[in-house]
Amino acid sequence: MTVDPSPNPVLINVTRSGFPESAHRGAVCVIDAEGETVLAAGAVGRPILPRSAIKPLQAIPLIEDGAADVWRSTGEELALACASHSGDPIHLRTARGWLERLGLPEDVLACGAHLPLGHMSAVRMEANGETPSRIHNNCSGKHLAMISTALNEGQPLEGYERPDHPVQQRIREILSDITGADLTGAALTVDGCGVPCWAIPLHAIARGYARFADTRGMPVPRQSAIRRLKVAIASHPEHVAGGDRFDTALIRRKRQGLVVKTGAEGVYAAALPYFGLGVALKIDDGARRAAEVAMAAVLRYLELLDDADWAALRPYVEPPIRNAAGDVVGSFDIAPGWLGRI
Amino acid sequence: MTVDPSPNPVLINVTRSGFPESAHRGAVCVIDAEGETVLAAGAVGRPILPRSAIKPLQAIPLIEDGAADVWRSTGEELALACASHSGDPIHLRTARGWLERLGLPEDVLACGAHLPLGHMSAVRMEANGETPSRIHNNCSGKHLAMISTALNEGQPLEGYERPDHPVQQRIREILSDITGADLTGAALTVDGCGVPCWAIPLHAIARGYARFADTRGMPVPRQSAIRRLKVAIASHPEHVAGGDRFDTALIRRKRQGLVVKTGAEGVYAAALPYFGLGVALKIDDGARRAAEVAMAAVLRYLELLDDADWAALRPYVEPPIRNAAGDVVGSFDIAPGWLGRI
Repeated sequence: MTVDPSPNPVLINVTRSGFPESAHRGAVCVIDAEGETVLAAGAVGRPILPRSAIKPLQAIPLIEDGAADVWRSTGEELALACASHSGDPIHLRTARGWLERLGLPEDVLACGAHLPLGHMSAVRMEANGETPSRIHNNCSGKHLAMISTALNEGQPLEGYERPDHPVQQRIREILSDITGADLTGAALTVDGCGVPCWAIPLHAIARGYARFADTRGMPVPRQSAIRRLKVAIASHPEHVAGGDRFDTALIRRKRQGLVVKTGAEGVYAAALPYFGLGVALKIDDGARRAAEVAMAAVLRYLELLDDADWAALRPYVEPPIRNAAGDVVGSFDIAPGWLGRI
Repeated sequence: MTVDPSPNPVLINVTRSGFPESAHRGAVCVIDAEGETVLAAGAVGRPILPRSAIKPLQAIPLIEDGAADVWRSTGEELALACASHSGDPIHLRTARGWLERLGLPEDVLACGAHLPLGHMSAVRMEANGETPSRIHNNCSGKHLAMISTALNEGQPLEGYERPDHPVQQRIREILSDITGADLTGAALTVDGCGVPCWAIPLHAIARGYARFADTRGMPVPRQSAIRRLKVAIASHPEHVAGGDRFDTALIRRKRQGLVVKTGAEGVYAAALPYFGLGVALKIDDGARRAAEVAMAAVLRYLELLDDADWAALRPYVEPPIRNAAGDVVGSFDIAPGWLGRI
């Protein structure tokens, strides 16, 4: 057996009829813009792949570098740039409108095609034998943002998704700056939509979101860019994810009080603008079910979610485990120890 | 932070562009009918919920106690009794035929309704707005076996799913006997289909499957019952799961050489009749993706799967991680240490 020096703690237990059936380990970090840690559990210094949880930070250059003004980006479009959208009709309409204004065909998108993340949208397409296109990809808004930036800077569109393209270099520079992690030598991977995904220490992702929450001290153009993104997200929560999804439900409830973004493989990040805090968490095994319950617990611990919020969001924050007959037979429970008061 | 004395080892790593993105811990036990351990990793003495992975053992009384002869059970029906079926048309036809022969309406089944496990069957029903019924439940064959046994013994059908019903008491007695674990005081939970699910130490589940593989020394009626179940499973692998599922693909390939059964929350069990071995594994976090890759690795390690088997089963045993454009960007890797030669 290999040595396993410091496994992350169990964050979430899955309980059936009172028996501990499964368990999810992970790491969590809550930090402020100055780098003061509010909560840390597990290996918060270890680099992780932030995946789609980093999208709101990747969207900054679209506005800061001027493309959003040139292309007259709408609030829906700015929210879509930060989204893992469901591929529902509203998302397709916004993405198609943006693409038309750029005067480009859909195959300029390098993101590949997949069935919509939205369950009923996917069911309808599959049952009708329809083939998804690139616009259905949950990242199509992010790709449109990258393309808009490249167009505005007079850069070639060919290869905009590659790590050495100026658009990706600019994103890396902004990510390094806002997270405080120098990404020059960081592990580089390919995200599900083909763009670079650099490994970033969990505490640095949380720090990036804390600075997204609290922009004091930044150059004014970056402060303005982040403010516009926050307003767009708060105004169009359905554009950040989709109708029945946790991110959308949370942002609908807290509006400008919360930016929250899910990522593949159990990553979750959040900015709490009124608190000046950033949150990042990663479930070791990649389970979204645990990431959602853990994020809810952290937001409750931080008092961002009050009793009324908790009651309104109960199906998300305390998802019941039911048997096929509909009876509740289990629950997701916060493991003791890592959150002081839950 | 709470003390966490002995976490299970990492069994499967999830790698993206060479970076270790996620990891699945768990426990694995391979044992023979005499109780000699061939392979053990993690806390094999810890009780786990076997869920549907125990179905072939739960089906023994249907034959041993005579109901299968009275009701003239077919091979398809015996396989369906051991199944987590996909709710595809062949499964519904077999279940309906069985129910008709019993002369009972569908609502005698206590299992509740859910959309078919089979992806396209579920998509078709959902797109057409059809409501699933109890016969679609992946456990409907197991429930028909329990009902057939109760009818044959002259027991009330009402409450056949409750732990104190004679059918469930008989199953508990057989499970205790074949696994060697006294379940009298075992933790009792409700399975997804409403029947009792007792917690059983992982090594005892493996031992039960080893004795299912190698029945020497058992009373003749039990040997015969197990032989008929093994023949039924080998003859009707599509009835044990469904067309595109791993259990069905493995059994199709190895026929009488392998009984393999998946369970919810990352449980997997197998009997290797020609080797006289039983296998049981549980992924701590409940992930099926890891359970399948780990089971494949164990069967390869035991030389049950040879090069040709491995090549034929590659999409299951080495599932690629692709991005939306279809490029392979990652893999599931066997963590070093727990399997000697992989």
